[in-house]
Amino acid sequence: MSNPTIALLGIGLMGEPMARNLLEAGFALAAWNRTRAKAERLAAYGARIAATAAEAAAGADVVITMLENGAVVEDVLFGQGVAGALRRGALVIDMSSIKPREARDHAARLAALGVRHMDAPVSGGTLGAAAGTLAIMAGGEAQDFAAAQPVFGALGSAVRVGPHGAGQLAKLANQMIVGITIGAVAEALQLAEAGGADPALVREAIRGGFAGSKILEVHGERMLKRDFAARATATVQLKDMDNALDAAGGANGYRLPITTLVRDMYASLCENGGAGVDHSGLFLEVGRLNGKAIPK
Amino acid sequence: MSNPTIALLGIGLMGEPMARNLLEAGFALAAWNRTRAKAERLAAYGARIAATAAEAAAGADVVITMLENGAVVEDVLFGQGVAGALRRGALVIDMSSIKPREARDHAARLAALGVRHMDAPVSGGTLGAAAGTLAIMAGGEAQDFAAAQPVFGALGSAVRVGPHGAGQLAKLANQMIVGITIGAVAEALQLAEAGGADPALVREAIRGGFAGSKILEVHGERMLKRDFAARATATVQLKDMDNALDAAGGANGYRLPITTLVRDMYASLCENGGAGVDHSGLFLEVGRLNGKAIPK
Repeated sequence: MSNPTIALLGIGLMGEPMARNLLEAGFALAAWNRTRAKAERLAAYGARIAATAAEAAAGADVVITMLENGAVVEDVLFGQGVAGALRRGALVIDMSSIKPREARDHAARLAALGVRHMDAPVSGGTLGAAAGTLAIMAGGEAQDFAAAQPVFGALGSAVRVGPHGAGQLAKLANQMIVGITIGAVAEALQLAEAGGADPALVREAIRGGFAGSKILEVHGERMLKRDFAARATATVQLKDMDNALDAAGGANGYRLPITTLVRDMYASLCENGGAGVDHSGLFLEVGRLNGKAIPK
Repeated sequence: MSNPTIALLGIGLMGEPMARNLLEAGFALAAWNRTRAKAERLAAYGARIAATAAEAAAGADVVITMLENGAVVEDVLFGQGVAGALRRGALVIDMSSIKPREARDHAARLAALGVRHMDAPVSGGTLGAAAGTLAIMAGGEAQDFAAAQPVFGALGSAVRVGPHGAGQLAKLANQMIVGITIGAVAEALQLAEAGGADPALVREAIRGGFAGSKILEVHGERMLKRDFAARATATVQLKDMDNALDAAGGANGYRLPITTLVRDMYASLCENGGAGVDHSGLFLEVGRLNGKAIPK
């Protein structure tokens, strides 16, 4: 599989720059999107535009899916005929963020058809997708991971973290740390301000020490500027926290008290007018708990 | 005050390297410690060893205190005659980590005697103290902060974050972020392992993105190695979380739900055999909540 033919299903904010990087790296690529117009822009870069997902997948060595959630991935793979159109030995790389158990289910159902599967969600956002610097968290067979290296290399850098589903689990671990650290910074800066210190100077004083994080840098600044225009919404962060608790086995599963609490705080933020704000807007929820209404 | 005479009260793990850096920077320094033997080692570096705290303070332009907690600072300042021994206009720089309201109280009582006060707790530990790279969070008057710059410069770098007590508040904000981020990393790595991923590879995959932090780097590694030899104990972290909640005004004060939960988890860790472990040992408490006993 040194020069595989790729089908990329899902040409959205992430899929489009990823497709361009794959084309630039020399891969033959068929593109499909539910809203065809978005895929058609890629024709100028050399992509073949497919009318259906199954048509894109026919003859492909590798199918990359970059879709909204597990239900959509399942529908495209099994409802829209992609699985049936694939040759035995083809590899599905699902780069969507879905539940680990959904990824394991897809892997098992594809395996029954002789098709390989790897879950490989990403971190880095649209900027990372455009720059080809996505952090890719992969779950699946070691030999499939090795075979997929040329593909991953065009998109960013990948680490195989375990078997099927483990990539999705790593993404959830990432999102748990992101959401909880946002909560930590929110409470610390709110307390500093409530107690009469200058929160901007407090952040300045502590950023170089053990409290230092990417979140304190980036999201801490958003809090200080009250700039909650969404890069990633509170709603999506809530979905991630829900998926983490689902992966932990729900109410009778592995107990994650901090994740559970921060999930509830995101739910409350969303219910109280903050659904569309950036996930750093958990700062507003801490304020709301202390009598400050969330701005419209 | 371009070349002030300094009295350093409290020659422990932090005070000793700080004293050496001040002596090396050319300050005349009197040293006092409750256990005199610890102070006496500094004689070889040019310090005058004082028999009592008041004797060290007599004639000093600046008194630095580096003591265990607010009660000890209060006793040394007001019970052991330091406040009375100081000339009007002298400056007390309390670099101990104590409660903000204790710092404000000390400042007010010293002001009544014509003595200035600045709270200036530090982050960076014994390594930072030895290297002269402490992060110093200062609260007090702007002109006193300016006057203290040569002293701070010999010890690390200082940011004035607000009025009296604000330095202690910044330190607590720092400790809140540290404690909660440890909790975030603990839950994420425990879930990754429970779910069948390799937690070391998960950390590797996510450390460069938004989940990246000093805690994921340093404390995350301690968790993976199960190396909970204390650099900072769970007991001290619990004290810091308690002090943060105290600064927030207690049960009827500013609400900090995540800080409150993580405080309770540290309390539970300490009660269940983890009092002496490193604060990264919150990882063990997450395990304990899921049926894994804390190792003896």
